[in-house]
Amino acid sequence: MVRSILLRGFDQQMANKIGEYMEEHGICFLREIVPTKIERIEEGTPGKLRVTATSVKDGENHEGEYNTVLLAIGRDACTHSIGLENVGVKLNEKTGKVPVNEKEQTNVPHIYAIGDILEGKLELTPVAIQAGRLLARRLYGGQNTECDYNNVPTTVFTPLEYGACGRSEEKAIEAFGEENIEVYHSSFWPLEWTVPNKGKDTCYAKIICNKQDNDRIVGFHILGPNAGEITQGFAVAMKCGMTKVQLDNTIGIHPVCAEVCIQSNDQTILSSLGLQ
Amino acid sequence: MVRSILLRGFDQQMANKIGEYMEEHGICFLREIVPTKIERIEEGTPGKLRVTATSVKDGENHEGEYNTVLLAIGRDACTHSIGLENVGVKLNEKTGKVPVNEKEQTNVPHIYAIGDILEGKLELTPVAIQAGRLLARRLYGGQNTECDYNNVPTTVFTPLEYGACGRSEEKAIEAFGEENIEVYHSSFWPLEWTVPNKGKDTCYAKIICNKQDNDRIVGFHILGPNAGEITQGFAVAMKCGMTKVQLDNTIGIHPVCAEVCIQSNDQTILSSLGLQ
Ligand SMILES: Cc1cc2nc3c(=O)[nH]c(=O)nc-3n(C[C@H](O)[C@H](O)[C@H](O)COP(=O)(O)OP(=O)(O)OC[C@H]3O[C@@H](n4cnc5c(N)ncnc54)[C@H](O)[C@@H]3O)c2cc1C
Ligand SMILES: Cc1cc2nc3c(=O)[nH]c(=O)nc-3n(C[C@H](O)[C@H](O)[C@H](O)COP(=O)(O)OP(=O)(O)OC[C@H]3O[C@@H](n4cnc5c(N)ncnc54)[C@H](O)[C@@H]3O)c2cc1C
Repeated sequence: MVRSILLRGFDQQMANKIGEYMEEHGICFLREIVPTKIERIEEGTPGKLRVTATSVKDGENHEGEYNTVLLAIGRDACTHSIGLENVGVKLNEKTGKVPVNEKEQTNVPHIYAIGDILEGKLELTPVAIQAGRLLARRLYGGQNTECDYNNVPTTVFTPLEYGACGRSEEKAIEAFGEENIEVYHSSFWPLEWTVPNKGKDTCYAKIICNKQDNDRIVGFHILGPNAGEITQGFAVAMKCGMTKVQLDNTIGIHPVCAEVCIQSNDQTILSSLGLQ
Repeated sequence: MVRSILLRGFDQQMANKIGEYMEEHGICFLREIVPTKIERIEEGTPGKLRVTATSVKDGENHEGEYNTVLLAIGRDACTHSIGLENVGVKLNEKTGKVPVNEKEQTNVPHIYAIGDILEGKLELTPVAIQAGRLLARRLYGGQNTECDYNNVPTTVFTPLEYGACGRSEEKAIEAFGEENIEVYHSSFWPLEWTVPNKGKDTCYAKIICNKQDNDRIVGFHILGPNAGEITQGFAVAMKCGMTKVQLDNTIGIHPVCAEVCIQSNDQTILSSLGLQ
């Protein structure tokens, strides 16, 4: 059951491709529907559960029987019962999240907060680690580097792995305007998949450039095996200000999936030769 | 049988780690020894072959029986019988390779050469492709970008995969002096290997910085699963001039192997805090 869309906040073209892949491989999605009641109707392991659910669109009820119910509905910040009100730290009342400034200071300047409990920040292990590391250095190491929450790479470990860094296409359009971005994209077929003749047009990579800023790459997206491993280095490149020209001038590694990101300029030579 | 060293031209620490891994997994290397005679002593498939070999060190003869003999001894450039002498193109007489300038021109200015036949260049598919692409653009597309043969990433698809970009530690010392480089390194344990409790200290990553140039990363080396996929993005980052600070300020992706390259600064916080 999916309440609204898959992977809110992520590039929706990529998210939908993950959904399609899962559907093709036997996952049945019930869309725009939320569970309202779960009853045990058979004891034991696995046993049986009856799930009642309601359509978000028309309010209609649905019923189904399942062995297992897994809820993947995000996390809450348990900040309400730890006495923060006694020291005067302000919370977002609705979410319990802690607003901080770019130095991770709460409204009480000598009280800092990092990690998942931050309001408007990413809930990721390396983000929490990096923020803690830099905060320790600022407080006790005489340094002043702040944690950069932009262009944080991330990977969704779905059956078809999805790695991303920077803006989704939607966010890039919002930030720069549709006419100011250029999207280069390519399907690819991992070498290991060619032998079993599997998923020819399944894997996909997309790079979003800001035409107004030297074709700087503002979004990197890849869907395929080991997408996470691939994404890490490109995230460093984005940290170094990677432009499309720098990407194109890098030489690929053959045969790996990641070379598709380099080869996404295959068309440009044809057009520069007037062939396409 | 290994004539001299493993993977000449590659970082020798990495090459030897590959050798150790293969030995631990049952490959028997005979070192500093070359085959001098192969005789079939049993017909059929697989049949049997007697191999006579000579030690490079002491000239002593060795004999052994095998089912299969595979020679991995590099390639020759077949440039001697195609009439290049008629148009006056000069070759390296010993290797048959073609010397070219940075525009891939031979000594005959309207005759160009690209790919494996070039003298002193890399024998890799994407290098040949990139050189051809850029040559076509220069000749017919009104562009002037030359192929950059520096920092070409490459991967050795050994049982323990090895990805590299830039200089080996030996070459970095040669180029910059031992006192001017800093090497950051780390062993790592891929998540997938933790469950079968396999190869705890096998995988290894190493980054070589030029201290005289803003700690710019001049060598990137990684040994582990999917090393090729990991290396591609870091090669782009090197193209963008990646420094150690930029690397450290990038946030990792958890859990992937590639995050070890980011976390190689774990020690620096301890030392900046005076803890180590
Ligand atoms: C199922 C799941 C899968 C995930 N997968 C990934 C992934 O693949 N990659 C990734 O990067 N991130 C992943 N995350 C997110 C990651 O776990 C978090 O971003 C990270 O743990 C945040 O670190 P933190 O220190 O902010 O919070 P936490 O790790 O949650 O640490 C908070 C700690 O505070 C303790 N605590 C709470 N209240 C009190 C109290 N009153 N007194 C004392 N102690 C208290 C808690 O017990 C907990 O140990 C995943 C999260 C979940 C739930
Ligand atoms: C076993 C092996 C594994 C490899 N693995 C990898 C790898 O994993 N990754 C990688 O990047 N690179 C790999 N390489 C290297 C890669 O194959 C070469 O770098 C690449 O093919 C070079 O391209 P090229 O166009 O310069 O030469 P080639 O691909 O060799 O093309 C030269 C062509 O010229 C033809 N030819 C020769 N003489 C004549 C003639 N007289 N008339 C007409 N035609 C002629 C040949 O038949 C050939 O088709 C591997 C090479 C080998 C041998």
